[in-house]
Amino acid sequence: MSEAGIREFGDFRWEGVEHRPYKEEGSAPFRAISRQVLFGEAALGCELRYFEMEAGGYSTLERHEHMHGVMIFRGRGHCLLGSAVRAVTAGDLVTIPAWTWHQFRATAGEPFGFLCMVNHERDRPQLPTAAELAALRQVAEVAAFLDKK
Amino acid sequence: MSEAGIREFGDFRWEGVEHRPYKEEGSAPFRAISRQVLFGEAALGCELRYFEMEAGGYSTLERHEHMHGVMIFRGRGHCLLGSAVRAVTAGDLVTIPAWTWHQFRATAGEPFGFLCMVNHERDRPQLPTAAELAALRQVAEVAAFLDKK
Repeated sequence: MSEAGIREFGDFRWEGVEHRPYKEEGSAPFRAISRQVLFGEAALGCELRYFEMEAGGYSTLERHEHMHGVMIFRGRGHCLLGSAVRAVTAGDLVTIPAWTWHQFRATAGEPFGFLCMVNHERDRPQLPTAAELAALRQVAEVAAFLDKK
Repeated sequence: MSEAGIREFGDFRWEGVEHRPYKEEGSAPFRAISRQVLFGEAALGCELRYFEMEAGGYSTLERHEHMHGVMIFRGRGHCLLGSAVRAVTAGDLVTIPAWTWHQFRATAGEPFGFLCMVNHERDRPQLPTAAELAALRQVAEVAAFLDKK
């Protein structure tokens, strides 16, 4: 992958890029989401991944020390960011600083995908405890977001 | 910029992102190209920039030790990569390893833009010497690419 070259795009897949499960099954809660690593070379220092959800899919609700730089790439959906819920659409940028709770959901009845830039060296995500989840649910729009089908 | 938040996209600009000249005028040859830094936080380790050319515009022909991970984001054009010229279109990925000559040109009579991921710490680009340029021009399709209006 670190040879000079073009990898062609078509139908939200890339030539020579493996279309993988989002995470190992059972490792954390998620639904109907896939992962493609577009750039993963250690020499870059960062990775660029593309995550795509089917309608109704969602990523894991998590937080970690490393930050994410996200660009919505396909469709529309919502994201939880800290204790706020925001509608996002293709092209929008989402800054997820250290230790900020975050989750993406394909809420618009259509596939929803985003690019995520992340440091090559990074810590493992933390899942919310029952108490942390209850605290997040105190915000009505967060509870509605988490319960969205 | 490292606060949690959304920056909205519209017409190939982003809320709160400065639309800048590509490089300092006179520092290197280029034409009709702009730069927007979408993510530049040191904590990420990498930067994500968006470069856009008007029809007929081009980036600087250069090489450097650091590698680039590029995704074409808008339109169609051509890129020089080493000693090959390739047509590229929105969504395509371009891997530019260390010390590989590269240049992008908006050859399709329309605006042409790409995302470029690059390490936060990086060396300065080198321009070709007259001898290196003459060597590149030995390849007919490279000469045609460099002469394209």
